[in-house]
Amino acid sequence: MPIRSLFIANRGEIAVRIIRAARELGIETIQAYSDADESSLAVQIADRAVNVGPPHATKSYLRVDGMVQAARDAGADAVHPGYGFLAENAEFADAVVAAGMTFVGPDGDMIRMMGDKVSARQAAIRAGVPVVPGSEGRIDDPDAARALAEEIGFPVMIKAAAGGGGRGIRIADDMAAFEAELPKARAEAEAAFGDGGLYIEKVIGQARHIEVQVLGDGENVVHCYERECSLQRRRQKVWEEAPAACLNDAVRAKLCDSAVALAKAVNYQGAGTVEYLYDDATEEFYFIEMNTRIQVEHPCSEWITGLDLVAEMIRIAGGGKLRHAQSDIEARGHAIEVRLNAEDPANNFMPFPGLVGDLRLPGGPGVRFDSMLYSGYAIPPFYDSLLGKLIVWAETRDEAITRLDSALSELTIEGVKTTAPLFRALAADATVREGDFHTKWLEGWLTDNAARLT
Amino acid sequence: MPIRSLFIANRGEIAVRIIRAARELGIETIQAYSDADESSLAVQIADRAVNVGPPHATKSYLRVDGMVQAARDAGADAVHPGYGFLAENAEFADAVVAAGMTFVGPDGDMIRMMGDKVSARQAAIRAGVPVVPGSEGRIDDPDAARALAEEIGFPVMIKAAAGGGGRGIRIADDMAAFEAELPKARAEAEAAFGDGGLYIEKVIGQARHIEVQVLGDGENVVHCYERECSLQRRRQKVWEEAPAACLNDAVRAKLCDSAVALAKAVNYQGAGTVEYLYDDATEEFYFIEMNTRIQVEHPCSEWITGLDLVAEMIRIAGGGKLRHAQSDIEARGHAIEVRLNAEDPANNFMPFPGLVGDLRLPGGPGVRFDSMLYSGYAIPPFYDSLLGKLIVWAETRDEAITRLDSALSELTIEGVKTTAPLFRALAADATVREGDFHTKWLEGWLTDNAARLT
Repeated sequence: MPIRSLFIANRGEIAVRIIRAARELGIETIQAYSDADESSLAVQIADRAVNVGPPHATKSYLRVDGMVQAARDAGADAVHPGYGFLAENAEFADAVVAAGMTFVGPDGDMIRMMGDKVSARQAAIRAGVPVVPGSEGRIDDPDAARALAEEIGFPVMIKAAAGGGGRGIRIADDMAAFEAELPKARAEAEAAFGDGGLYIEKVIGQARHIEVQVLGDGENVVHCYERECSLQRRRQKVWEEAPAACLNDAVRAKLCDSAVALAKAVNYQGAGTVEYLYDDATEEFYFIEMNTRIQVEHPCSEWITGLDLVAEMIRIAGGGKLRHAQSDIEARGHAIEVRLNAEDPANNFMPFPGLVGDLRLPGGPGVRFDSMLYSGYAIPPFYDSLLGKLIVWAETRDEAITRLDSALSELTIEGVKTTAPLFRALAADATVREGDFHTKWLEGWLTDNAARLT
Repeated sequence: MPIRSLFIANRGEIAVRIIRAARELGIETIQAYSDADESSLAVQIADRAVNVGPPHATKSYLRVDGMVQAARDAGADAVHPGYGFLAENAEFADAVVAAGMTFVGPDGDMIRMMGDKVSARQAAIRAGVPVVPGSEGRIDDPDAARALAEEIGFPVMIKAAAGGGGRGIRIADDMAAFEAELPKARAEAEAAFGDGGLYIEKVIGQARHIEVQVLGDGENVVHCYERECSLQRRRQKVWEEAPAACLNDAVRAKLCDSAVALAKAVNYQGAGTVEYLYDDATEEFYFIEMNTRIQVEHPCSEWITGLDLVAEMIRIAGGGKLRHAQSDIEARGHAIEVRLNAEDPANNFMPFPGLVGDLRLPGGPGVRFDSMLYSGYAIPPFYDSLLGKLIVWAETRDEAITRLDSALSELTIEGVKTTAPLFRALAADATVREGDFHTKWLEGWLTDNAARLT
């Protein structure tokens, strides 16, 4: 059933993005807001707004029952979760549906399956998608462990099967080290968890993060090509691009086809992203996880393909079928997105909320700005520091980087420190120009180049 | 020789546009400014700025010798004329070259040839481009006049060959009227100009304005498809689109090919626009003129093709060859530009200069804003009223119109009245949605819909 009124269970730039898409679809928008967000841009441009509680997210945006109740009370017939907060909370998706509304995203069971690393990995294997080589479950026999380590190749990671969150991980660079570490790991696991069971996995060295955007309607799936998000700080993406410059066409086709195969195998419905590690020395890629929501970096894919992903996911949630055949989705040029955070890059990225003074936004060809900023906006200190995203497009990657720097040179956000200086420094860096980086590269660069960010 | 420093002999949004393109090309920018433009955005973002005289354009931006001197004194090696002012002044182009600098545009002789209606028409005819049917020159013999009128078909316009500026024009709807008007026109011409010679031309009824963007490097020429600019007020374009929705592919190909044929026949160098009247009843098009400069509405073509036309024209002026083969230039989706003028549409479009207060620009996918506005900018009363251009892109024309309205709903320019309400009203109009208009249509609509603009 087509959606007539949409409750936006999120805030910030993604709320603004969702409102714009819904407005163009002729859908009434109802914006949730905490006490801290009463003067937000999303509240100002939505058709209606509903207070959902105190500033702290656990008391407002993260409350499953409270958000569902607010949406129902407002008379919404659908809920868009955005990203973060409740976007990948299966219980929330179920509760929205149980309350008689449409959830803009896949159903709770899909979110549950993809949210669990083991079941997601199994789904990938069933669909023929390469996963990081390793033991399928716990491996107790040392001979079997040695044989598997030999088979997958070093370096190999040894983990406690009962552990979690990185505890008890050891890395072996060769068989000698593996044989030395194995009994220690077993003893340690036994001591720590009362279970000596181990699990081994290949270490993907200097990997790149590449992800494929997919859209599914429950029957058919298309991809919108890949994005590269290898420039990360503390595992947070800060600079994303589409396409991934390091892929040749044959690898790109394999990668995108594998993402479609996975999404098709599970009858995926909505917008989703299949994430991979990519080893450009071997040209092998390995499934990490699938995100069952719209992602921060979706505009890169929108620009190269021309699709409006947020509009498409709303259409699909309303019962629509895919409007594009795969053969109609062509990639053109190169897009780069940078995340403008209210953080001081010269001071270890300390959060820097404040009052926005004079605001000058760049414009012209190939420049898109997605943001909740306006002059006079007091940035609340309660939420993540993302202020907006500058997205540029040009015919080539090199021209896109130049355009990024040019646009940043015109951007003025008085009153707050932002990560803009980081991106100007990266745009001027030869390694970034060459695209010769991996997911750990930026951390090292930041250590070496602190002086360039002041 | 590649350009290293560029003097921008213009102001307003096109100066900002040129600075952005030059900056991305690594070219130093030197902005000309009158006393009234000292605080302009162009002056602020250029590398350097040079005062060129008092506010009145005749004493600054229109002074050929003064502008050339200023560019030379500033050490520029090239001059970009923008549009308007001296952009199609052949004497200026010659003087720039005589002073040892590069003119970003075709040479003076090309500007002269295309600036003269008769020589431009003759060039078009030589290139096989259809022109408005009519007498090639003065026609003195009444029998020949009657025969020609019969041949080109009614209605026919009778003009005094020695006249100009619309004086002495009579329109005949059929042969009886023609025979009655002919002697009167002759007597009137004789009385007014001392020369009874007449000239006749077909009246193209309810024509649409369609123009083709071309790029030439002196040897080769490519087109970037067409734009439709039929929504005009007092012969000024206010809303432009690409592609022209009224053309079928066969007519589009013929039209674009004819523009390339004309530009190739004259070895055109630079960005140019070949303008036509198009009669959608007969699917015939007729050459009107060729503009030898960048046009206000160039962003529409940029968005559908992905080319940066201002960067390309600078590259070509610097000796570069075309970087795109025709087969590499593909059109995608639909772009619409509206001209935001500082005028009050509710008060007969009275100019409304003022001080810009709070400024909120729309963003998100498919939205581009080219403007010289900033909060706190005092709009000087001396120049044309164009404040900026909102350009939207979407997969289809219908979606682009919806996006235009959506973006306009977020645009706030406090302190001045603008033409934004006109465009919201047009976006809501069924005839505009259907694309069923011609160059005179908007004038009638404005008479009928004055109440909708208050």
